[in-house]
Amino acid sequence: MIVVMKCGCSQAEIEAVVKRIKESGLKEHISQGVERTIIGILGQNLLDLQDTLQLLPGVEEVIPVSKPYKLASREFHPQNTIVKVNGIAIGGDEIVVIAGPCAVESEEQLLATAREVKADGANILRGGAFKPSTSPYHFRGLGKEGLKMLAKAREETGMPIITEVMTPNDVELVASYVDILQIGARNMQNFILLDEVGKTRKPVMLKRGSSSTIQEWLLAAEYILTQGNEQLILCERGIRTFETSTRNTMDISAIPLIKKVSHLPIIADPSHGTGKWYLVAPLALAAIAAGADGLMIEVHPNPDLALKDGVQSLTFENFRQFMSQLIPIVRATGRKLATSGIKVKS
Amino acid sequence: MIVVMKCGCSQAEIEAVVKRIKESGLKEHISQGVERTIIGILGQNLLDLQDTLQLLPGVEEVIPVSKPYKLASREFHPQNTIVKVNGIAIGGDEIVVIAGPCAVESEEQLLATAREVKADGANILRGGAFKPSTSPYHFRGLGKEGLKMLAKAREETGMPIITEVMTPNDVELVASYVDILQIGARNMQNFILLDEVGKTRKPVMLKRGSSSTIQEWLLAAEYILTQGNEQLILCERGIRTFETSTRNTMDISAIPLIKKVSHLPIIADPSHGTGKWYLVAPLALAAIAAGADGLMIEVHPNPDLALKDGVQSLTFENFRQFMSQLIPIVRATGRKLATSGIKVKS
Amino acid sequence: MIVVMKCGCSQAEIEAVVKRIKESGLKEHISQGVERTIIGILGQNLLDLQDTLQLLPGVEEVIPVSKPYKLASREFHPQNTIVKVNGIAIGGDEIVVIAGPCAVESEEQLLATAREVKADGANILRGGAFKPSTSPYHFRGLGKEGLKMLAKAREETGMPIITEVMTPNDVELVASYVDILQIGARNMQNFILLDEVGKTRKPVMLKRGSSSTIQEWLLAAEYILTQGNEQLILCERGIRTFETSTRNTMDISAIPLIKKVSHLPIIADPSHGTGKWYLVAPLALAAIAAGADGLMIEVHPNPDLALKDGVQSLTFENFRQFMSQLIPIVRATGRKLATSGIKVKS
Amino acid sequence: MIVVMKCGCSQAEIEAVVKRIKESGLKEHISQGVERTIIGILGQNLLDLQDTLQLLPGVEEVIPVSKPYKLASREFHPQNTIVKVNGIAIGGDEIVVIAGPCAVESEEQLLATAREVKADGANILRGGAFKPSTSPYHFRGLGKEGLKMLAKAREETGMPIITEVMTPNDVELVASYVDILQIGARNMQNFILLDEVGKTRKPVMLKRGSSSTIQEWLLAAEYILTQGNEQLILCERGIRTFETSTRNTMDISAIPLIKKVSHLPIIADPSHGTGKWYLVAPLALAAIAAGADGLMIEVHPNPDLALKDGVQSLTFENFRQFMSQLIPIVRATGRKLATSGIKVKS
Repeated sequence: MIVVMKCGCSQAEIEAVVKRIKESGLKEHISQGVERTIIGILGQNLLDLQDTLQLLPGVEEVIPVSKPYKLASREFHPQNTIVKVNGIAIGGDEIVVIAGPCAVESEEQLLATAREVKADGANILRGGAFKPSTSPYHFRGLGKEGLKMLAKAREETGMPIITEVMTPNDVELVASYVDILQIGARNMQNFILLDEVGKTRKPVMLKRGSSSTIQEWLLAAEYILTQGNEQLILCERGIRTFETSTRNTMDISAIPLIKKVSHLPIIADPSHGTGKWYLVAPLALAAIAAGADGLMIEVHPNPDLALKDGVQSLTFENFRQFMSQLIPIVRATGRKLATSGIKVKS
Repeated sequence: MIVVMKCGCSQAEIEAVVKRIKESGLKEHISQGVERTIIGILGQNLLDLQDTLQLLPGVEEVIPVSKPYKLASREFHPQNTIVKVNGIAIGGDEIVVIAGPCAVESEEQLLATAREVKADGANILRGGAFKPSTSPYHFRGLGKEGLKMLAKAREETGMPIITEVMTPNDVELVASYVDILQIGARNMQNFILLDEVGKTRKPVMLKRGSSSTIQEWLLAAEYILTQGNEQLILCERGIRTFETSTRNTMDISAIPLIKKVSHLPIIADPSHGTGKWYLVAPLALAAIAAGADGLMIEVHPNPDLALKDGVQSLTFENFRQFMSQLIPIVRATGRKLATSGIKVKS
Repeated sequence: MIVVMKCGCSQAEIEAVVKRIKESGLKEHISQGVERTIIGILGQNLLDLQDTLQLLPGVEEVIPVSKPYKLASREFHPQNTIVKVNGIAIGGDEIVVIAGPCAVESEEQLLATAREVKADGANILRGGAFKPSTSPYHFRGLGKEGLKMLAKAREETGMPIITEVMTPNDVELVASYVDILQIGARNMQNFILLDEVGKTRKPVMLKRGSSSTIQEWLLAAEYILTQGNEQLILCERGIRTFETSTRNTMDISAIPLIKKVSHLPIIADPSHGTGKWYLVAPLALAAIAAGADGLMIEVHPNPDLALKDGVQSLTFENFRQFMSQLIPIVRATGRKLATSGIKVKS
Repeated sequence: MIVVMKCGCSQAEIEAVVKRIKESGLKEHISQGVERTIIGILGQNLLDLQDTLQLLPGVEEVIPVSKPYKLASREFHPQNTIVKVNGIAIGGDEIVVIAGPCAVESEEQLLATAREVKADGANILRGGAFKPSTSPYHFRGLGKEGLKMLAKAREETGMPIITEVMTPNDVELVASYVDILQIGARNMQNFILLDEVGKTRKPVMLKRGSSSTIQEWLLAAEYILTQGNEQLILCERGIRTFETSTRNTMDISAIPLIKKVSHLPIIADPSHGTGKWYLVAPLALAAIAAGADGLMIEVHPNPDLALKDGVQSLTFENFRQFMSQLIPIVRATGRKLATSGIKVKS
């Protein structure tokens, strides 16, 4: 951390800053310039000191120089983390496709979708049992019944399943049914929920909050990692901007940036990221070209009858067509689609 | 809701839209223009139909014309809601000042602050016992011990107390200690928490999410109101924008806008809204001039030693000075500072 | 400027940075920590060096510690700048009210508005002759005819006039007619136009670009100041955010922030800032409570017949009522409305 | 356009709206619902009416249903526009690569870069002669000398050249030297400049303003098209958001969206879009995967010595490597790199 003193600050003010640094058990290093004095602080645990020093007389600015996250950083963990789910490796050479309906609506709807997306090459089945909804008057999911339907679909198709968990009390229940616990964008800073999924040993997929910086996202990841759960996947799903033509603005640059600063796998969700079915395929291809480890795509047998987010869901035919576009792009990046991991129904 | 058909859509496409509308038990009303056909839909519960219709062939756009919230709207409830807390009326003629430290750190810190802000004219004491923190390595509050200290401060000063509740499991505990339950900005769309505080009969203060539109905020309020809890106060605390000179951008226009479309009281939190102590007073005065019903201000005996958010906290002296600036502004708006409500210590 | 080296960078990398610093005629100052080496750079004209150093091997980050503007900064010019327009002092104790129609539409419209706003206490007349318009199909102003009408209104009422100049070629023409040259939000970074108005000795009002940071705004001001024109007024008129209930989000915190870091006067334009006539009064009062030096308000005899921006214009009656609300707020801040400056018609 | 009346509006209010519609020479169509009355308006030139009607008593909202741009829309012009520059077709099957330094610094720098990027497969040479700069203290370009160097580089390499024109007065000069006129992001709403380049018959590349919606961008395009210049290329270069890890946030979804609503070619500039050289390649590949017609890439012989934007420039080696990654992605989309168009030096 660096303390930049104001032009013309007094010697007493400099000394007061130094005193405070020493009281915190840290060491100072003073650079006396012509115009300004700059004080470097050496040591650990500087975070709480930033606000403090900023308020001392004569201080112009306090600038942190280290990243505030550690376990999530590539500096700390240079190799890519690979999350294994039923033999599917997420974060390695293979590209993983997660597909399924936004919300589980019925056994028929879920099973039909599961069979279709599996036949088209998807690896993991998604489906919401607990659904966050902006309005209290909209569909909020089938709850436990939805979890049972997901389990049944896994049993039949052999596909691992992922679903969102919305509140700490449900973590145990949801974890007992599914293969990956999803934390939704609105809960990215629900810190008690992060603690709770961090205590499980289930893989977790952490969506980026729609107004979260990359640093805040990695700090949310840090919550889960500090609880000892390292089976963590990030998911970019668009950020809130002034542009209203799309539901969110997919931040494709987040993908190579995360790859640079972190070791965690990152996938993209162009369904929520764009909110329009006809933008899903181009943005999915873009995400893969930019280096994403996988995709999460909403598919529905009849989007125009969907209880939730039909407008961003692909039909079966659109999904098939998309998968045929995806294959050459994946190849062009030097990677391949995951094929392993689906257990044959016994 | 209005369905705008594409230029040159076919009669069959129009009929398919009409059929879907009738299947939903609603009535259509067709306007055949030279260029376009527009279909109005009359009736209730149109929300789920929007996505559906948007996907039908020949449909250009589906435009909702009603507000999606009802209980929170002024149309539904024309008179101002007045929330009563120990005889203090929030939302009426009087301006309410809530003050106290960001986080409860110790009995001494809290009591000293409580005595000071009471002497200066504050009506309600704030103090965080459960603190959301972007980083897992920062202070997360004293928890139940903090609640006990708040209760003690209330006992001594007679001031009602407000504190944040972060998770559904804590609602009962926190409600047993405090007078107003605060929902923080990060939890504005923690829908299960909203349900839970909606089931209590304690007053609730709902902060605006830092990237929430006014409509989303009122829909979050609707969650609480639909559970039967009408003792609800809104709190503007800044939104996330591209500007980095301030922690958030206070959306002062939200204050008169909320007053226009809703009956709920609204207060402003310039401490979080600006993140800089020297901007707190001017933004607090601005909020009152724009019609806010009250303020929430962070005060700390020694901001440079605060465990959290010291950089946005007023010293005792700064708070006193601020209150002396506030009085003439309040008078200039034709209102007055609340004085009632503080029970004398027996 | 400070160069933060990567953990574990080599001695050769440090030396390469030092060499580059010396080649630029500057001095380095090295702080060797346990984890990191930090190199301070002392001297002037560091700006071009930032990118350069950032690309050298072993460099983690390059952090500027000085503000990039000088003439606009309060450090350089501690006293408030007061801009004088026909005896009206902008930036001192008095609050200045600029009012008039968005666009000059006719002599009748302009004169009627000028008489009204003068009678109600406004000091300066606004009116657009050259109008920026998002669409090529909308009204773009009367041009030179509009300038003549403004001059006639000044002659009749004695009020100084302000109008926008949109392009370098028009600066001389517009300057020959009006008392203050306005640079619109869309032209805040039209650098050649900034140079041009900087070369005149007419007062200039520089609106904030709708997506400009405060630093970029002050750098735009610096363009004008470096040309020798110190008669400069800033105008906050809202920034673009995700919120769509208002046309822009008024950044009221920019007002006290500008006052802190700069000596330039700042006024607020709540008409463009909100885009809704019923929000103009509360936001105008808020701006004054927060420390603004004046206001710019759109007034139209018949907003529902206006050729431009009627929806944000006050009627004569609304403007009268607003002025009666403004007076007590101005007094409460310890300031007073400007009364001088209007020359009596001879 | 649709006028939504308030619940419980009076018959007289409805009639007043109808009267105003008829006075504008338009026809109304009334839908009387149980709760609300909705009035459709049929006809052309409705734009100016929106504000007007919104202010009439009893009116809740006025909703436009047509797009405000016409010449830029795909409805009006269903086939893709193909812009031809020296035999290179932009907007067809081939992908065009524009490359070169951010700013022209010297003949040596420009020629070396031109030779390199041509050898690597680039089709068009970029280089700024007039440079917009946020600060008046930074490099603003070599001006006319830079144009001459560009012309010399074209002469030597046969590559067509593109450069930015910043102000109406320079249009003739710049057009006399270059093959494509570039309008920079900060000038997207410099309407007089748009008029001016619209009057030429040179191809124009219009960059998206950093806080412009897609609709505003297409309206800016409409300015150029209404002047009769149809040789227009759009360029996505990132928008301003709250995220500060990148200079801008590339809005990749704008690419397929523009393709859907407009016939104009669209290319991507990941150098400005990300501001970091190591993000240029992944975002360029993403843009192509999403359907872009070309790329604009900054290349510099010595980025660490560049006078402008070195931090986002590729070295020769990085550019070569990028081109080798680009080829398979282009192929995977079923398109090919443009090869024609470079005239052999005679």
